[in-house]
Amino acid sequence: MAPNEQRIKLTLQYDGSGFFGWQVQPGVRTVQSDLEAALSRLADRPISVVAAGRTDRGVHATGQVASALMPGTWTPESLRRSLNAILPGDVWVADAEAVAPEFHARYGAVAREYVYRVGTAPASFSPFHRRWCWPVRDRLDAGLLDAAAASILGDHSFRAFAKSGQPERGERSVVQHAQWRRWEELGVELRIRANRFLHHMVRYLVGTMVDVASGRRPLADVAALLAGQEGLETSPPAPPEGLFLARVYYSSDEIGREDT
Amino acid sequence: MAPNEQRIKLTLQYDGSGFFGWQVQPGVRTVQSDLEAALSRLADRPISVVAAGRTDRGVHATGQVASALMPGTWTPESLRRSLNAILPGDVWVADAEAVAPEFHARYGAVAREYVYRVGTAPASFSPFHRRWCWPVRDRLDAGLLDAAAASILGDHSFRAFAKSGQPERGERSVVQHAQWRRWEELGVELRIRANRFLHHMVRYLVGTMVDVASGRRPLADVAALLAGQEGLETSPPAPPEGLFLARVYYSSDEIGREDT
Repeated sequence: MAPNEQRIKLTLQYDGSGFFGWQVQPGVRTVQSDLEAALSRLADRPISVVAAGRTDRGVHATGQVASALMPGTWTPESLRRSLNAILPGDVWVADAEAVAPEFHARYGAVAREYVYRVGTAPASFSPFHRRWCWPVRDRLDAGLLDAAAASILGDHSFRAFAKSGQPERGERSVVQHAQWRRWEELGVELRIRANRFLHHMVRYLVGTMVDVASGRRPLADVAALLAGQEGLETSPPAPPEGLFLARVYYSSDEIGREDT
Repeated sequence: MAPNEQRIKLTLQYDGSGFFGWQVQPGVRTVQSDLEAALSRLADRPISVVAAGRTDRGVHATGQVASALMPGTWTPESLRRSLNAILPGDVWVADAEAVAPEFHARYGAVAREYVYRVGTAPASFSPFHRRWCWPVRDRLDAGLLDAAAASILGDHSFRAFAKSGQPERGERSVVQHAQWRRWEELGVELRIRANRFLHHMVRYLVGTMVDVASGRRPLADVAALLAGQEGLETSPPAPPEGLFLARVYYSSDEIGREDT
């Protein structure tokens, strides 16, 4: 790091509808490419960023974290304002702060939290909601949702709930929190926090839990899938538009404070 | 009306962001053209619709009303479901009912109600809100907003608050209800009901009221503009993305019930 540089931690919100996910890919619009273009314009040299999680195409964020090394002429607040002035309307910098030079948005994260919204009221199909939820026609049993969420808590292999054929650094994940709540009068939402997530893990979990709650498959399937029962498969993954990367934690103190 | 036809009243919601307004125009996407295409496909012959209000480009609706003459093979409910299955995601039929053959969505309306959302919290700039509001940086005085809204109640000429150069059938409008309320923790919203609205009337009213509430112009300007004071002009119109056509009334009974 040059002496007049500083590392800035950006907390981002975005509507994933118009993006091919986070990560730069040639020929398509991604959040990373839009953000890097804006930062490079402000720094007047090429800037690259690292994000806590590479959200897939169509997935949203209310608390994605990215870090960048910027010229020292920018204060976090001046950077936040200028970025918001030039970024397109579907990406927004909610917060910016100076962090230690060794801060790494991805490897420094100790936990990530996602929210998945399922619309159960007819109004969840309206254009003001369906952009950001998975509207379903089934009646969902709240008790079965609760039981399914409780059954995934703790340290498990989530291989059954991961997109196959993807290279994964291990299959285990420690789910620290998993709870369904009402989402206004429109439906229900799952909040799930884990030390790490396998590819498409939340979407596979939600797809299967919704099938359990609508009576299409037994609750016991969730535990059986975690136990790796032969021949048993998850339900199709829930669609990306209901999924939000909600928060990234960089110290276990933060998590402790949340839970009390 | 052929013997096997029936008139259906559709209550529509749409996100105006992707449309060039309601009315059919060559070469661009409008709500009317999408709806007529879907109805024509279901009826297997050309169907045209009439709407209560021709919303402008970028303006949304939570309660637009349109009527169409459909083959008697469609029940209102089967039509609603099939329309929602084939319409794009940014238009949605919230309700469908069979009405008398003489029902006319536009000429039969006795009052229309609009909502205009102004974001005052920083979070209103987020991609999950700014699509459907006008985020402002000013601190708005709630007392001045209330006083400005109260001053437009009743029967006035709203010529000053109408887009000039537009042919208008008269300049008068009876404002039956005009009130600012909190919009969640994000800002404030004006709900306004009148027997008729001039072109851009709500947007000119909101643009001027926001300037009054932020201290950029005196409250007395609102009454002076209504009185037609020479040389006085409104503020620029508020942008379309904060505006929603919220409800259309077809009998004064309906209004009476609402107000009690």
